[in-house]
Amino acid sequence: MTELKCPGFKAAGINCGIKKNNELDLGLILSESSCNAAAVFTKNKVAAAPVILSKKNIESGKCRAVIVNSGNANCATGENGLSNSVKTVEKISEIFNLPVSEIQIASTGVIGVELPVKKITDNISSLKSNLKDDFTDFNKAIMTTDKFMKNISLSDKIDNKEVHLLAIAKGAGMIRPDMATMLCYVVTDAEIDSLTIKEMLRSCVNSSFNKISVDGDTSTNDTVLMMAGGKSGVKINSQEKIKKFKSLLEKALVFLSKEIVRDGEGSTKVVTIKAVNAKTKKDASKIVNVIAHSMLVKTALFGEDPNWGRIIAAAGRSGADFDPYETDIFFDNICLMKKGSTSGSQAEEKVHEIMTKDHYEIIVDLNLGKFSDYIITSDLSYEYIKINADYRT
Amino acid sequence: MTELKCPGFKAAGINCGIKKNNELDLGLILSESSCNAAAVFTKNKVAAAPVILSKKNIESGKCRAVIVNSGNANCATGENGLSNSVKTVEKISEIFNLPVSEIQIASTGVIGVELPVKKITDNISSLKSNLKDDFTDFNKAIMTTDKFMKNISLSDKIDNKEVHLLAIAKGAGMIRPDMATMLCYVVTDAEIDSLTIKEMLRSCVNSSFNKISVDGDTSTNDTVLMMAGGKSGVKINSQEKIKKFKSLLEKALVFLSKEIVRDGEGSTKVVTIKAVNAKTKKDASKIVNVIAHSMLVKTALFGEDPNWGRIIAAAGRSGADFDPYETDIFFDNICLMKKGSTSGSQAEEKVHEIMTKDHYEIIVDLNLGKFSDYIITSDLSYEYIKINADYRT
Repeated sequence: MTELKCPGFKAAGINCGIKKNNELDLGLILSESSCNAAAVFTKNKVAAAPVILSKKNIESGKCRAVIVNSGNANCATGENGLSNSVKTVEKISEIFNLPVSEIQIASTGVIGVELPVKKITDNISSLKSNLKDDFTDFNKAIMTTDKFMKNISLSDKIDNKEVHLLAIAKGAGMIRPDMATMLCYVVTDAEIDSLTIKEMLRSCVNSSFNKISVDGDTSTNDTVLMMAGGKSGVKINSQEKIKKFKSLLEKALVFLSKEIVRDGEGSTKVVTIKAVNAKTKKDASKIVNVIAHSMLVKTALFGEDPNWGRIIAAAGRSGADFDPYETDIFFDNICLMKKGSTSGSQAEEKVHEIMTKDHYEIIVDLNLGKFSDYIITSDLSYEYIKINADYRT
Repeated sequence: MTELKCPGFKAAGINCGIKKNNELDLGLILSESSCNAAAVFTKNKVAAAPVILSKKNIESGKCRAVIVNSGNANCATGENGLSNSVKTVEKISEIFNLPVSEIQIASTGVIGVELPVKKITDNISSLKSNLKDDFTDFNKAIMTTDKFMKNISLSDKIDNKEVHLLAIAKGAGMIRPDMATMLCYVVTDAEIDSLTIKEMLRSCVNSSFNKISVDGDTSTNDTVLMMAGGKSGVKINSQEKIKKFKSLLEKALVFLSKEIVRDGEGSTKVVTIKAVNAKTKKDASKIVNVIAHSMLVKTALFGEDPNWGRIIAAAGRSGADFDPYETDIFFDNICLMKKGSTSGSQAEEKVHEIMTKDHYEIIVDLNLGKFSDYIITSDLSYEYIKINADYRT
């Protein structure tokens, strides 16, 4: 297993009694020094209490510590919910002697249930004594229905010095209200100002977490946070260095976003839906969005059925400008539909073979313009129904 | 069983060899005289060949005959598809001595497969000799995955004379590309001009078929057609009479639309999602639309899980203007969420009881304004996956 370390950062993960069976449910990241930081949060109007508080604190552009609990999302918990997040942050502030504005907080798990805040505040000291260089326990502590840990450790030479980046995510669906809200923490020993972090983060989230879908439901707790501690001594202060660091960040987030789809609830496939040669970027986006969320397409992916009719019909209701009689559909390199008509049974057989793979691409070629877009999605299986119908019963 | 009759109309249903096991697959409606008529078609850009032809023919405002085949949608079949629909209509024109512009045509079934047009044209004479007053065979002939027939026969006194309306629909999903495309035929012995029919039809389709959803996928073949033959001698030519007749039409279409949800693929529940007291109608529509199509909400309906968190989180991503801390959620008359927080475990238990019923309502009260909207939807079950994953394999 890769070492989950980044110079200048420590982390901890313990059980504080929210999850059963002594599973880790409380995690902390602590930086040696105050970091420049920025974050991206859920756009859901129903934002959880910790999101409301973290949004306020990150305005400082600084972050020293992150506290996360799993097993309870502290969402739709009214005024109490907010006060419980405030209590947690105040306890961290007291024990680590940090300004409140440099503390980020997140919760993930069931929503609508009051947070047992005492279990958290009583265990902050225990978190302190469990701090290690390695982030493995932290990674475990933020998981909910995740079947496996999701992390990536990268490094690159910038200014002839080694720069490190460690990114850890949780989520088993794109973004989900109560089981698999998506969280991601990125720490680096590069030195970057918070405005640059914000711009890089937004851009890289757009090409990673904003390109995946499991069920199209969006969460109340999603957070992607990046902290730059600067211990490497490398300043990311030129366009060239920003470009280099950004490609490192993008690589990490794209990897983690695919890991989330692979671990998607009930998912048996990771399928990239591409629309190419559209008149506008918006048309391409509309088409991939509707195809990726079509229940009929997703069940056909699960059934390994080359049912291109469902794909073109989904495109047809997307509102995008295109002509079905000019459109081709490919699965990887096999053309299944040519100008709105079937390519025949031999093509169907070849495509069925492709569909038995874990990963493949569906390309809708509109033959109209030069714009394209894509979404990475999963299939819709019996297991998805099982997980979500029986979740609380 | 109700008699499926309407003065002035005959119908037939036969097997022409498209469906196996001698199941009825070719239907005809014939009016004694030329009817005023109007129709509403799928908005999907990928419209089937018969839709393209019917749209052109209905511009005449007249209709005398309707031909429908099931088992093959004649969609995404290129130029051949269109010429096959034209051949069918020309054969009807020849055998019944009717102008082409007074013939409507529809196909429903698998898409992307060439229509075996000869099986149809060779059997038009047989349709003629099978014409009856009763529409039961016609109803059977237009079914695909429907588990039961969907029809309604109504009458009312207008101008002291009895006016009849017979409406027949097929569909086992809202609107679907290849298995359950939705068709509906309404015939009446009232006399109504085609512009009035068009206006009434649009309005009543909006409050019926446009208010239902099974899986959110839309079809390439949807058609709702209404023909007014005038045999009753009753002229619908005043605002008062239009209002009266329109309420009859709306009753029929609302009934049939609910029948389609009840027969929805894998459906075990019919649930009305209402948003009330919204700031604008658009806000209410956005909220019910997102909730009704949320896979997480639909699996919770199937699992009979009072998971209001999924409902408020779906509303939260709808883009509608509302404050979760001012919002209440009811299941029938039981309040499950009050101002963004749980109403407690007793309320949950009562709501779980409600969720075991076949029909119930979920009401999202935004406490903001005076606008409301609703959608009637179904749950998402294992059976849905089974039907759609294994359909062609």
